[in-house]
Amino acid sequence: MTTLKNDCFIRALLKQPVGRTPVWMMRQAGRYLPEYRRVREQAGSFMNLCTNPELACEVTLQPLERYRLDAAILFSDILTIPDAMGLGLHFIEGEGPRFSHPIRTEQDIHKLTLPDPEESLSYVPNAVRLIQRELQGRVPLIGFSGSPWTLATYMVEGGSSKDFRKVKTMLYDRPDLLHELLGKLADAVAAYLNAQITAGVDAVMLFDTWGGSLTTGQYQEFSLRYARQIHGQLKLKQADRTLPAILFTKGGGLWLEAMAETGYAALGLDWQTPIADARRRVGDKVALQGNLDPVALYASPATIRTEVNRILTDFGHGSGHVFNLGHGVHPDIPPEHVGAMIEAVHELSPRFHV
Amino acid sequence: MTTLKNDCFIRALLKQPVGRTPVWMMRQAGRYLPEYRRVREQAGSFMNLCTNPELACEVTLQPLERYRLDAAILFSDILTIPDAMGLGLHFIEGEGPRFSHPIRTEQDIHKLTLPDPEESLSYVPNAVRLIQRELQGRVPLIGFSGSPWTLATYMVEGGSSKDFRKVKTMLYDRPDLLHELLGKLADAVAAYLNAQITAGVDAVMLFDTWGGSLTTGQYQEFSLRYARQIHGQLKLKQADRTLPAILFTKGGGLWLEAMAETGYAALGLDWQTPIADARRRVGDKVALQGNLDPVALYASPATIRTEVNRILTDFGHGSGHVFNLGHGVHPDIPPEHVGAMIEAVHELSPRFHV
Repeated sequence: MTTLKNDCFIRALLKQPVGRTPVWMMRQAGRYLPEYRRVREQAGSFMNLCTNPELACEVTLQPLERYRLDAAILFSDILTIPDAMGLGLHFIEGEGPRFSHPIRTEQDIHKLTLPDPEESLSYVPNAVRLIQRELQGRVPLIGFSGSPWTLATYMVEGGSSKDFRKVKTMLYDRPDLLHELLGKLADAVAAYLNAQITAGVDAVMLFDTWGGSLTTGQYQEFSLRYARQIHGQLKLKQADRTLPAILFTKGGGLWLEAMAETGYAALGLDWQTPIADARRRVGDKVALQGNLDPVALYASPATIRTEVNRILTDFGHGSGHVFNLGHGVHPDIPPEHVGAMIEAVHELSPRFHV
Repeated sequence: MTTLKNDCFIRALLKQPVGRTPVWMMRQAGRYLPEYRRVREQAGSFMNLCTNPELACEVTLQPLERYRLDAAILFSDILTIPDAMGLGLHFIEGEGPRFSHPIRTEQDIHKLTLPDPEESLSYVPNAVRLIQRELQGRVPLIGFSGSPWTLATYMVEGGSSKDFRKVKTMLYDRPDLLHELLGKLADAVAAYLNAQITAGVDAVMLFDTWGGSLTTGQYQEFSLRYARQIHGQLKLKQADRTLPAILFTKGGGLWLEAMAETGYAALGLDWQTPIADARRRVGDKVALQGNLDPVALYASPATIRTEVNRILTDFGHGSGHVFNLGHGVHPDIPPEHVGAMIEAVHELSPRFHV
């Protein structure tokens, strides 16, 4: 492994002392950047961009050229695993992801097989290797996956959903079937993240985008249980380093105590969850990542700076905080507003680390 | 006032002893009922239905013919106030509410005037009087309004929104303007609910549908503050009775302690918030209403019964619980599934009240 020139992101996740609060942004390689839109056009389709390691590498590195970011995140999609399972992922302009062959029957679940990450998903570890060669240790690279519950919602609904009625009807009436699906997905996610680790990522993050749609009992049984299981399967202890893993459940603010008991080094926070309370509730168990309202980036740079300061102040003194948004950046945010956020973290955070 | 023949809904809200847990359902007068769809067709448009007291009365009473419900709720829309302020409410099939004249400028806010509920909104108190004449005290009638924050989101966005970018940009950059708007709306909501009280409703409910999109600090400053102010303006102490008021913030599970300090007799709970924890957190301060996942009604009647039992058991023994969904019923739920829920509450709840 190349030695990291800037390791404050990793250090903050491990709650080791840092000189300032590290910062990166969910969807930092994305549509709000004109240079991204150029590559996206060149690629023809979103999936072409995800599956082409050279192009995925190029867009992964773009935000690092513009901003003083403390981490890069692999450019990919959370739905690569179901696509590799044969569900046929595609994107309809303005409507989000769709599967050509969604889960419709019990048989569809029985016959699902685990994709080999170095075969049908080889474009992902290949992109990781390429990015790390290009990064040369400038900042750490984050690998990621969707959580089993979140993947299952798309696989059963056939795409995005407002109320998750198909997958939740399965949850209510056929929990055995849903557990079969989630168990297979957990194994697939663990293998997928381990392939990213072997290829060289420096940290991993599990995106449980739709965990917040569940009741507390359901969240523990159908989402958190598999997040814990995956953590146990990850090869986080490497010969030369220990990788931190981050768990993010959007809408999971009620469940932080339980999430902090699953082994992950850090929890992602959405913007509704107050970070001062969150820190009090999780104590020394985990680091926290977040949690500026993504919509705050529509406000003026002066307001953005005020909001950044509020979050830094709310977290307070000491290591264990990675600054981020509470969800992905919106595609029509002005790039200079993102810059205002990142610069504010650089300027305002050192006083919390003396 | 007619004496109520069935007052267990009111008694539960006031935490007085009851023989069983009362039950009603958000949007119980609505599209899932074929008899509603017939009247809706006859009315021509949704607004025609809302503004015609005879038709509004008819659909309000429909679910009581089918089910053993413990309350009726006025059939209306949460956006009647902005409509009466001149914003021009209309509904586009499959897309929800729209305003012809949304708030676009500072001047638009300055020139907003308070509608007189007995003038431009007279169809609402007229419907209340008619419904109460027809109900003859069978069960209590609930009046309601949208919260100032929730009304403001539609007025500034021009309709439904996923991320509330316009109204939140105002919140971030021009909080003074937003407070001016919310102050006017709070006065309008209080006058509107007081007109419903004078016309004869037995309880009122404030729907803060979009409070959950805010950070904790914003929720307190831009939503809860006005809910508290409205409660202080309500004429809940009548000569012959005290009316309970219910506050419902969807996505407000993190903020129950603060909500319980605002004077409302009861809090509505969404399905993500565990009712056992909620009861522990609010103590004796308020009653609780909720909180079955609306999607659980797609499941089989046997599963619905299990879920009802789980919620009753989680709340536990004693008064102070009104059974409901955690959000409005979906339009394509089979009516017999709603019946299964209501019957399960009737059959399973008496043992929690002995």
